[in-house]
Amino acid sequence: MPADALHLEFLDHAIQIARTTGAKIKTAFHSRSSLHIDLKNDNDADLVTQVDRAVEKEIFTYLRSKYPSHAFVGEEGTSESGVAATGISSNSDTPTWVVDPVDGTTNFVHGFPFVAVSIAVVVHGVPIVGVVFNPIMDEMFTAVRNGGAFLNDVALPTPPVRPLASLASALVASEYGSDRGADVLDAKFAALRDVVGSPARGVRSLGSAALTMCYVARGALDAYWEAGVHAWDVAAAAVVLREAGGSVGNWVAPSKVEHGKHEAYDICARNVVCVRQTQLPEQGPAIMATIRAALRPVEYARD
Amino acid sequence: MPADALHLEFLDHAIQIARTTGAKIKTAFHSRSSLHIDLKNDNDADLVTQVDRAVEKEIFTYLRSKYPSHAFVGEEGTSESGVAATGISSNSDTPTWVVDPVDGTTNFVHGFPFVAVSIAVVVHGVPIVGVVFNPIMDEMFTAVRNGGAFLNDVALPTPPVRPLASLASALVASEYGSDRGADVLDAKFAALRDVVGSPARGVRSLGSAALTMCYVARGALDAYWEAGVHAWDVAAAAVVLREAGGSVGNWVAPSKVEHGKHEAYDICARNVVCVRQTQLPEQGPAIMATIRAALRPVEYARD
Repeated sequence: MPADALHLEFLDHAIQIARTTGAKIKTAFHSRSSLHIDLKNDNDADLVTQVDRAVEKEIFTYLRSKYPSHAFVGEEGTSESGVAATGISSNSDTPTWVVDPVDGTTNFVHGFPFVAVSIAVVVHGVPIVGVVFNPIMDEMFTAVRNGGAFLNDVALPTPPVRPLASLASALVASEYGSDRGADVLDAKFAALRDVVGSPARGVRSLGSAALTMCYVARGALDAYWEAGVHAWDVAAAAVVLREAGGSVGNWVAPSKVEHGKHEAYDICARNVVCVRQTQLPEQGPAIMATIRAALRPVEYARD
Repeated sequence: MPADALHLEFLDHAIQIARTTGAKIKTAFHSRSSLHIDLKNDNDADLVTQVDRAVEKEIFTYLRSKYPSHAFVGEEGTSESGVAATGISSNSDTPTWVVDPVDGTTNFVHGFPFVAVSIAVVVHGVPIVGVVFNPIMDEMFTAVRNGGAFLNDVALPTPPVRPLASLASALVASEYGSDRGADVLDAKFAALRDVVGSPARGVRSLGSAALTMCYVARGALDAYWEAGVHAWDVAAAAVVLREAGGSVGNWVAPSKVEHGKHEAYDICARNVVCVRQTQLPEQGPAIMATIRAALRPVEYARD
């Protein structure tokens, strides 16, 4: 089944506005003296900048001019902007644009170059178009359902696919997030301790869910999990990852996956676990199962 | 006191051979199908490739042609190459070149772009010249004692220096390393759990000690600690970090630091803790003290 022509049109618009706003993010990144930083919820680990707000406004102004009847959900959504911060409908036929203007705001503030614009189109709760652009490192990840995934126009993953028989040869990624509650930290540390001791080959933490999932898609990382992510962090990258042959799901496995189909992934459930494409189709789900067995429940309110 | 002219000559040679071999590392990185990977000590987390060995040989051949009377220490040192893997003398006047041909071998194997050539000159046990070059991202960090630190010829850190009053506004980095002993992992996880819960703003793990220290030097990360590092992982980056105004030391604090002087840093002691330049001179050592208080002893045989 080829990609839908309308979805390819969505993709083109997403790429264009990601490039335009990405250039501004890059300029601001390299002249950080002018940054104005706010703490969200008085939390020293959860930041937002004027750049986040200005970029989100520019993206939605552009998209609304192209698709006035669509729905719009963004990280910095406010009632006056007409953009919601929650409410992705799984019943409506209306496409919903789900945007994170700056995924990796803490990286952005600190000058650490893993920063991305993330733009997805979601229909019936399923992401079908994804663009994740790191303007600092000039890495443009793009994907549309049934159309393949690309990094700077090169198909992902680039062969050969390295063997990944088990976690022992896996470079995994996870994050501690911005929640500093003791129970949450204990649960996250215990899970990572179990995975590392399994053993896993190594652990990386980059501070951007969207880019980390795209690094799994390209095979530079083998697996990733996190709790606390929002739909705008994962929706675009989920398309890239699936189209690159990877597996993505929630922390709790579905009771049944239809043969030959992707398992359902609920982007609003505030968690993710994923594995890159493997040589044998059963290896990815097997590694996801090993990781899921190590996870302790961490609950967040749905998007 | 200006930089020593002879040290600047060492620096020029280090930069030249780092660029030459870096180009080869970059080519191999992007054509990974030809990689031959060996496990060190039958450990799935400790890798070495033909590229590591070939690059190290080329670096030492070059340096020996320039400085036949000097001493040479490298990660892949063997008796037949005339390069030692240990034995950095703190008593001899002979300069010792300390080289890691590919810092971040696991990243290199997986195609994760934090990979560096690290070249240092050590005299009386003290690193005085440092070059850390990431050929994938084209980031060349250079420093010579009393001569300042540079990233691609721009002085570090680039102003302004952000406030860093405490760990609460610090983006820290640490690593779990390749040792999968349960006691070692428990000690490392407990320390990181304490620091994150202090709270710290966030945690990153990049898989290259040399580059992580250089990212602290540039201010993209605020603090870093690790146990298990070797002299060739840290010697060059320690010069970059100090010349960029940062603080670097071992896990056990010295009993006394002379006013206005750097505390002693033993590059052979297999550990490191460091903090970037801060606005007030006492802030860096204070944050180092907070991190040291969280560390549990992890012992490795000296280099």
